Amino acid sequence: MGFNLSNYLNSKSKNRKMIDFQDLDHLDGLSISTINANLYNAKRDDLVMFYFRDGANFASVYTKSKIISENIKWNLNQKTQKIFSLVVNTRNANAFTGNQGYKSMQNIAEVISLELSDKQKQDEDEPKVIKPKNILFGSTGTIGEIFPLQKIISKIPELINNIKYTQNKLIWMKAALGIMTTDTQPKMAMEECYIGKTKIKIYGIAKGSGMIHPNLATTLGYIFTDADLSNDILKKLLNNNIETTFNAISCDGDTSTNDMVSIFSTSKAKHIKISSINDKKLKDFDHSLNKVLLNLAKRVVADGEGSSKFITININDAKTETDAKKIAFSIGNSPLVKTAIAGEDPNWGRVIMAIGKSQVSIKIKKLTIKFGKISVVKDGKIDPNYNEKETADYMKNSDIEISVKVGTGNKNFTAFTMDLTKKYIEINADYRS
Amino acid sequence: MGFNLSNYLNSKSKNRKMIDFQDLDHLDGLSISTINANLYNAKRDDLVMFYFRDGANFASVYTKSKIISENIKWNLNQKTQKIFSLVVNTRNANAFTGNQGYKSMQNIAEVISLELSDKQKQDEDEPKVIKPKNILFGSTGTIGEIFPLQKIISKIPELINNIKYTQNKLIWMKAALGIMTTDTQPKMAMEECYIGKTKIKIYGIAKGSGMIHPNLATTLGYIFTDADLSNDILKKLLNNNIETTFNAISCDGDTSTNDMVSIFSTSKAKHIKISSINDKKLKDFDHSLNKVLLNLAKRVVADGEGSSKFITININDAKTETDAKKIAFSIGNSPLVKTAIAGEDPNWGRVIMAIGKSQVSIKIKKLTIKFGKISVVKDGKIDPNYNEKETADYMKNSDIEISVKVGTGNKNFTAFTMDLTKKYIEINADYRS
Repeated sequence: MGFNLSNYLNSKSKNRKMIDFQDLDHLDGLSISTINANLYNAKRDDLVMFYFRDGANFASVYTKSKIISENIKWNLNQKTQKIFSLVVNTRNANAFTGNQGYKSMQNIAEVISLELSDKQKQDEDEPKVIKPKNILFGSTGTIGEIFPLQKIISKIPELINNIKYTQNKLIWMKAALGIMTTDTQPKMAMEECYIGKTKIKIYGIAKGSGMIHPNLATTLGYIFTDADLSNDILKKLLNNNIETTFNAISCDGDTSTNDMVSIFSTSKAKHIKISSINDKKLKDFDHSLNKVLLNLAKRVVADGEGSSKFITININDAKTETDAKKIAFSIGNSPLVKTAIAGEDPNWGRVIMAIGKSQVSIKIKKLTIKFGKISVVKDGKIDPNYNEKETADYMKNSDIEISVKVGTGNKNFTAFTMDLTKKYIEINADYRS
Repeated sequence: MGFNLSNYLNSKSKNRKMIDFQDLDHLDGLSISTINANLYNAKRDDLVMFYFRDGANFASVYTKSKIISENIKWNLNQKTQKIFSLVVNTRNANAFTGNQGYKSMQNIAEVISLELSDKQKQDEDEPKVIKPKNILFGSTGTIGEIFPLQKIISKIPELINNIKYTQNKLIWMKAALGIMTTDTQPKMAMEECYIGKTKIKIYGIAKGSGMIHPNLATTLGYIFTDADLSNDILKKLLNNNIETTFNAISCDGDTSTNDMVSIFSTSKAKHIKISSINDKKLKDFDHSLNKVLLNLAKRVVADGEGSSKFITININDAKTETDAKKIAFSIGNSPLVKTAIAGEDPNWGRVIMAIGKSQVSIKIKKLTIKFGKISVVKDGKIDPNYNEKETADYMKNSDIEISVKVGTGNKNFTAFTMDLTKKYIEINADYRS
């Protein structure tokens, strides 16, 4: 479980055409602290605190599961305009933990708010009183185990003591590592953009489909910006951009009780005031936020359990975006398609099967399918120039692109997924102990 | 590819608590013929004809895929009251074969109808004229390959010549073997029941999730009875019983272009006339039909690709049957649940996850979950008596039963599935050549 930063940085690239590793540095108004709270009984940080000394505006989207974890219930119940801290623990999902799990959130929020209020008195000219409702939680790990309240409570003073005013590449890396479960790589992304003439930072970290004593594949994504945007605008921005990014990825079609993506704005960048989501000065920010979210989402897929290939599924010219999405996920979640890709088999018959089972009305004669740039199906028939050997060679790539033109309209959707390998079964069939 | 009947019969049982192997014998009005049409270029029968010398009433249900094979298009287009023959070929799915595929059906139906009309003249006192529309087709195999019209046409005389008046155990076995793709076991079932005081036979064969040069997992199921029931009553009986049998099974959640389940009645049993589906004298038949369908459906699952365990998922006390079904398949199609079972891990957290992602509204406090007879979750909490060791021992069985009480109503649904193993990946990731 131990992690060596320089080993990691020197480790061989997976040779994927992913956006290069990006260094995150200081983002005004945000501090990060990580600690080993012995949740794993291993030499690794497993508890991460994000601290906003002047509070942050925020918005979150949560799992669509009908069974949600206690930390997410806590988050949903807090009625507040500002968040002062986000605390993320690993190893225990705090799901199906009932009262003990929920009360743990309350107890920890009480202790943190008291300690952070004390810190405010030490550090700030105009110290603010931080309340439990100003604290949000992210949890990921095993379901149904008693939440390790005492282990976490006992580490809070040290966690807060570790907070430094200025952040750097190392602390971001430690945070991205600290929220990992069995992810094999930390996931970070950043963009810089402009609102008016002011440069704005958008930083993000995420964790993906990892297992702890294998259990659930929880996705957590946290975005931080120094922009000055209201909760309402942040919510709209997040909702608008989540569909094509985190909601466009699929590892195994399963959904965790704990999925959570949040954005926090510290308002430290003194840009021109934005009072509406429709303000054109938001365009660059909107676009850059999408890039950060997409970058993180792709990293989650690329590091999906047992994955050997990254798969992009483009659906074009569908009647509605819903149709395009249905077809994309029908292909992307099909075990038969995903195993064929693992086997480097250009088995386009399975793509046809998946299009058919999506329940979207199709005009076969208008259907075209490409693997990469290779035309496989054209006007509803096998392309006369289709060359199996050439396509089989294409399947050896680690990035596979399947493009389907439906030909019933002009709506598009792109989904991202991975192949289904023996390694996935190995990881997930292993007994938890 | 060769198959040795006595080897098969002597082969070691999979030690599953399945209904014992049943012998099918003569069913008046039906003849069967099987042949090696060299579709596989292997020593096995790959073309099977069912011949109804006086015609049969019939009903079919077909795949819900929006892309359907040419043989199913043919079947759907024929407006006829009586079927004289069902012909099933393997190796080629006749899907995505366009005009060539459809015209092949037409050509074969023309040749068969002519040849069978000739046979009528030889055999019958009142020979009937059989038309192309009286012929139905079942196909299973690879998608998108040119349909082997000539190979099949050239074998029709021999296929018809093989027809014998009396059927026996051997010819049923040959038929069940002849429709197999990579099924490892032929699938047959039978029941005897009464309509009034007349004994009625219900025989059935099926094929399941096999691959040819691995491709699609097509399910074919054919039921034959000597009852005298109208097309309308057969249709209602089939529709009523398919939901809890063939539509209650799931291997990998994928749907073939070729799925087909049909029932044929030869009307040879001279029972009291049944003119309504609501006639109480149909009850025993209805019940027995369900047993035959369920038996076949279970055999399809038990022989699912790479399966090492047969899984029954009982959902009880849900608000609606739709809710119960959604939860059952959310569990039954979850790769995380299925790999955990393959790993003999009583990972009930994943069952919770699957219940949650089903999108059915749940009252957690009312939820109970059992693995076999072991109570795992009770009143929304881990059962205080839950014993991990005992449950882990239970998971070593080859039949696993997961029972969920939702507690929001009184509707039930039971689904059947299998585990997800490395073997599944092996079978499906193998390159087709």
